[in-house]
Amino acid sequence: MKYPFVIVGAGLAGLTIAERIANVLNQKVLIIEKRPHIAGNVYDFYNDDGILIQKYGPHTFHTNNKKVYDYLSQFTKWRDYQHRVMSYVNGHYVPFPISIETINQLYNKNLTSEEMFEFIENRKVSIDDVRTSEDVVLSNAGIELYEIFFKNFTIKQWGVSPAELDKTVISRIPFRNNRDTRYFTDIYQGQPLYGYTRMAEAMCDHPNINIMLKTDYKDIINHIEYDNLIYTGPIDYFFDFCYGELRYRSVRMQFETHDLESYQPAPSTRYPNDYDYTRITEFKKLTGQVHSKTTILKEFPCDEGEPYYPFPTEEWKVVAGKYRKKAENEEKSFFLGRLAEYRYYDMDDVVEAALNLFSFLYSIK
Amino acid sequence: MKYPFVIVGAGLAGLTIAERIANVLNQKVLIIEKRPHIAGNVYDFYNDDGILIQKYGPHTFHTNNKKVYDYLSQFTKWRDYQHRVMSYVNGHYVPFPISIETINQLYNKNLTSEEMFEFIENRKVSIDDVRTSEDVVLSNAGIELYEIFFKNFTIKQWGVSPAELDKTVISRIPFRNNRDTRYFTDIYQGQPLYGYTRMAEAMCDHPNINIMLKTDYKDIINHIEYDNLIYTGPIDYFFDFCYGELRYRSVRMQFETHDLESYQPAPSTRYPNDYDYTRITEFKKLTGQVHSKTTILKEFPCDEGEPYYPFPTEEWKVVAGKYRKKAENEEKSFFLGRLAEYRYYDMDDVVEAALNLFSFLYSIK
Repeated sequence: MKYPFVIVGAGLAGLTIAERIANVLNQKVLIIEKRPHIAGNVYDFYNDDGILIQKYGPHTFHTNNKKVYDYLSQFTKWRDYQHRVMSYVNGHYVPFPISIETINQLYNKNLTSEEMFEFIENRKVSIDDVRTSEDVVLSNAGIELYEIFFKNFTIKQWGVSPAELDKTVISRIPFRNNRDTRYFTDIYQGQPLYGYTRMAEAMCDHPNINIMLKTDYKDIINHIEYDNLIYTGPIDYFFDFCYGELRYRSVRMQFETHDLESYQPAPSTRYPNDYDYTRITEFKKLTGQVHSKTTILKEFPCDEGEPYYPFPTEEWKVVAGKYRKKAENEEKSFFLGRLAEYRYYDMDDVVEAALNLFSFLYSIK
Repeated sequence: MKYPFVIVGAGLAGLTIAERIANVLNQKVLIIEKRPHIAGNVYDFYNDDGILIQKYGPHTFHTNNKKVYDYLSQFTKWRDYQHRVMSYVNGHYVPFPISIETINQLYNKNLTSEEMFEFIENRKVSIDDVRTSEDVVLSNAGIELYEIFFKNFTIKQWGVSPAELDKTVISRIPFRNNRDTRYFTDIYQGQPLYGYTRMAEAMCDHPNINIMLKTDYKDIINHIEYDNLIYTGPIDYFFDFCYGELRYRSVRMQFETHDLESYQPAPSTRYPNDYDYTRITEFKKLTGQVHSKTTILKEFPCDEGEPYYPFPTEEWKVVAGKYRKKAENEEKSFFLGRLAEYRYYDMDDVVEAALNLFSFLYSIK
């Protein structure tokens, strides 16, 4: 078989590249996908009870990148939606990330912005050389808030203490001295009006795009003549694990459908200190679907399973670096996305990276 | 690329063969499908309003074939469902097919079975040589019921009068001298509990099965080494239309979502004499879905479009016969299903045909 372009992986990275090649270059593309569906980790579907859920965990689109927003808007209308998260602490749900609202509710106060500034300033721990995630929180919010909101959550999430994690892991500011209780503050926020899978279908709705599902690319790649391979799968698998298997943090997803209109007070709730799950997502609150029942997702972080989060320690950055170095020698192959670059990508960032890679490929045509 | 088995088409015929090859022979199968989804004409999905609809028109499963029922029951639970149809005549909905209930409602009578026998007997037209569909109805139910229920419906459906159609076209008995108002009387009747697409997904949920979507098999078949090709696409296309294009009757599907709990008194209604559509299906009444809105489908038969119904006249049987003759010379290829055999198949019949073909292939292994 002969295709000028072969893409491994039908997630957002692969679909974006495929769409551009098909529409702009007007060339044939073969996408090879291991799973039985397209859309990668943003895949959503209607479950047994007819509720739209996200199989691989919650995704809420947000970006300040107008280019990416406009690009995706070709393939979906949006449900204007601004994500809200509450953290369950000391037996109450309080807004998260920590804002004036959070402090006032937690301590039953009614502080003004100026009073709040002082309240936090007095608690901040002075740290000269901020290196770890623990340092980030302590120096911005103090030990009490660190322990209530971050310490145990991080241990559940990563299996290690924030003191062992690089400062970039807890990147969102741990305290906002205002009353904005949104989880993200990006200009563009929303959910694809009919879901992510529908958006993904629209992205590859072009006769130039052929899609192979349920297929390991290694089973067939040697039988395909191609000019360029865009690889969005795990980089270690591409190189037959020659430097060993990269470590990922995974999540065991436990979906539950309850015979209730509403399950919880926010679309997403965090459980830093209670239970073994880190958070509960209630999908109807993301999608706006009206249904007499509701499906929730409890997330239990674990080591084995789908590779969700590249492990954020130095050790694994080094191994990934070796693979990346090796990848540079692949003349016909380009590595793109969370698994191929071994880095966490938000949706908007990976689409932008794909658009950039396309511009690069196009300029050398 | 090399596959012992290649299957063209991911409808019920192709999926059944693929499943058997993968599970029983434990061999690799490649399914090549032109559409962007599996499941062929039984494909269902949740529409913009979150209502489960059948994209290519209503399908209600019914069979007396326990083997087929048991086979499919491996891949789905069933919603026990017995199909009901009403015909809109003279401004009223009456049960269809015509039963004692229909006659009593239509003529505002309360006839017993014996009285009904006489009522119908007196109306039957004596025809020595029953050849056409018109003959079938006239000789079984008389001219008035023919004109009310069948004549115009058939003209809408096929574009020709029942007098021009073979007697096999109106095959369901036009009158039942009992009070059974079900549309089918088969022992096993139901809908796949989570829809047909879910059942189709389960059928091909085996690592031996690779699926290529959005792909015309002719674009790649010369690059694949295979032992057997099972072809479920249009037979005339396979042979490059060497005897011309076969004629099909198609349907323009008009979906409408109404802000009503219920739209009509039965899952399916027929309009023999009113409007240009032949029938209206209300999907919630098939699936049992609970939703504050309801989606209906109006079917407008037409000539151009998806090839739904092989044209039931002698002329096209002759052309199809030529293609079938030619197909017999294809040593590596087997022709299966509605499009490849140019014959109407109910779902149970095509699954049975696929199981039989598999037995045949398996016996020669």
